[in-house]
Amino acid sequence: MTNIQKVQDFLEKHDVDAALITNPDNIFYLTNFRSDPHERLLGVVIFKEADPFVICPAMEVPDVKAIGWKYEAIGYKDTDNAFEFLDRAITERIPTFSLLAIEKEHVTVDRYEILQERFPALQFAKLDDELANSRLIKNDVELTYLRKAAELADYAIEVGCNEIAEGKTELEIVQAVEQAVKQKGAEKMSFDTIIVSGTKTASPHGIPGEKRIEKGDFILFDLGVVYKGYCSDITRTIAFGEPTEEKRKIYETVKKAQQAAIDVVRPGTLAQEVDLAARSIIEEAGYGELFPHRIGHGLGISVHEFPSLTGTNNMPLQEGMVFTIEPGIYDPTVTGVRIEDDLYVTKDGVEVLTKFPKDLKVIGE
Amino acid sequence: MTNIQKVQDFLEKHDVDAALITNPDNIFYLTNFRSDPHERLLGVVIFKEADPFVICPAMEVPDVKAIGWKYEAIGYKDTDNAFEFLDRAITERIPTFSLLAIEKEHVTVDRYEILQERFPALQFAKLDDELANSRLIKNDVELTYLRKAAELADYAIEVGCNEIAEGKTELEIVQAVEQAVKQKGAEKMSFDTIIVSGTKTASPHGIPGEKRIEKGDFILFDLGVVYKGYCSDITRTIAFGEPTEEKRKIYETVKKAQQAAIDVVRPGTLAQEVDLAARSIIEEAGYGELFPHRIGHGLGISVHEFPSLTGTNNMPLQEGMVFTIEPGIYDPTVTGVRIEDDLYVTKDGVEVLTKFPKDLKVIGE
Repeated sequence: MTNIQKVQDFLEKHDVDAALITNPDNIFYLTNFRSDPHERLLGVVIFKEADPFVICPAMEVPDVKAIGWKYEAIGYKDTDNAFEFLDRAITERIPTFSLLAIEKEHVTVDRYEILQERFPALQFAKLDDELANSRLIKNDVELTYLRKAAELADYAIEVGCNEIAEGKTELEIVQAVEQAVKQKGAEKMSFDTIIVSGTKTASPHGIPGEKRIEKGDFILFDLGVVYKGYCSDITRTIAFGEPTEEKRKIYETVKKAQQAAIDVVRPGTLAQEVDLAARSIIEEAGYGELFPHRIGHGLGISVHEFPSLTGTNNMPLQEGMVFTIEPGIYDPTVTGVRIEDDLYVTKDGVEVLTKFPKDLKVIGE
Repeated sequence: MTNIQKVQDFLEKHDVDAALITNPDNIFYLTNFRSDPHERLLGVVIFKEADPFVICPAMEVPDVKAIGWKYEAIGYKDTDNAFEFLDRAITERIPTFSLLAIEKEHVTVDRYEILQERFPALQFAKLDDELANSRLIKNDVELTYLRKAAELADYAIEVGCNEIAEGKTELEIVQAVEQAVKQKGAEKMSFDTIIVSGTKTASPHGIPGEKRIEKGDFILFDLGVVYKGYCSDITRTIAFGEPTEEKRKIYETVKKAQQAAIDVVRPGTLAQEVDLAARSIIEEAGYGELFPHRIGHGLGISVHEFPSLTGTNNMPLQEGMVFTIEPGIYDPTVTGVRIEDDLYVTKDGVEVLTKFPKDLKVIGE
């Protein structure tokens, strides 16, 4: 069954007339066409029976055709009213319709009001969960891409470790890593690379800068790449020079917590059990207050996707899911440490896609 | 007046109780705090009189404080209901409120419904235009950053030209350019760099790949950098080997059209006059159908921002506006050519921020 047929099944089952999809990641999932439309309208409309169509800026019609889209691609110009084109294309296919599925987590209020004004009697169904669930279980082709993306992330960490040297700036290491990984086939980074050092590691979302790395620093790498449209996301924390006992204790606690979380991953385990496996170890070690985020998130076409692995999510894991496990301890007066892998849930356990070693690596001794 | 005070003025003037801002670019404009919250809630709430506050993931509170935010930063954990925290923080400051301004072009339907459910009697005002207008006129500090971002974009084109050689892939040139410009101080690229060659130039949003450049190709560079949070955006099209007469004619037409558009820029000119100045030259040369997009877009914290310079926008230009001018001709059987500069509207004319030469550059002859 194609991904478009899955949406058609949903429409049939819930008696919804049509679905308008505008989230670029979902459009890629459904059509294989990838584009960042910025403020312009880019959508695919799917019907129970009629053929789907893509609506896009006129200048992108050839690109849509070039990726093998076999249905209509309707282009509008910047001076056209895109919603008028959308309206006409839908009503040509289904003259009357009363229920349209949209991505409520993506469509803006502004566009919602435009739709409401244009179709005053129209009701809206939420399509987000259906698409998130559909993307949840990765097929063999997707797994191949995710494995390759993870392999490239491992390589990026290896390059990063080799770049560590007294006096280099964080940004210099970012550049070297990104260049190397793109030369190996990464399309782009899956998010802004984080390489931070010293107490800057205590910010989970730190920004690399002109800070020079120094002996005694922990250096935290959090990065990922996109390969054939699929993302990886890895974190490793490396010691530059012999660390203090306290830093070692924080590191070993995170490592133990991360392994404990990995060890419970198999079909049937609840998402919250993964979070709690790690969290209880961090709490027992007295660092509970310094682990302020969830254990992980789904990974695929989006770098953060369904599901969110929190301490309150009682969703059972299923074979084919891919997500991160990334506990951390952030002590602003000492250091931050985070260790993150990408995991694939197998029939009876787990395949860890990222493989860079996790024993504390001490560089420059 | 601070940017927050401008929003307070708006609230006062329109008798709106409070404003919730969640677009990361607007948050940066108002607070100087920059973060990509992905699916998490990140917002700043501004009141007529009470102090504003930031609401963010708990792990980002120290980062908000670190950039000098002098008001409260309210952190929530991944297991908390962020909207409960938001609700409590607002009602602590103003126990009753009936009108909340939001960015209707950014808030999703999902979040809108959460707000509607939590505050059943609440009405919503649209804040987007106010913020877009407030960001429209750049001050001296912003102009300094935009000039520097443009200078780095010029440098990127220079590097790109030096990298052109038979058999190199488009992606190899992308890597060399991005590395060089980051070493010179660019924080990151302002969008995915486009470097495409041959007939791939005929796609306005082409994607660089493993295609090797060959003698006879036009090579199109469309890229920009971010400097201190401000974007540049430049396009140059370069000939590799002596071009045919037809390609030269297309190039000269675009160049003439682009200059004609620049020549009409001054306070009081209508946006549509800029578009038409270029479009009429392209139409006269017989290429009208091959120029399928608007002449340009506003530029600042966002790489595409207000205003949109189309053939139907009758907004008068004002001193302090910054935008692109980027006509193109895209003939899928011959070549694409686009030339793009960033412009600042001065008191009585224009300052072109990007300065890389526009006479057709022929490399490798």
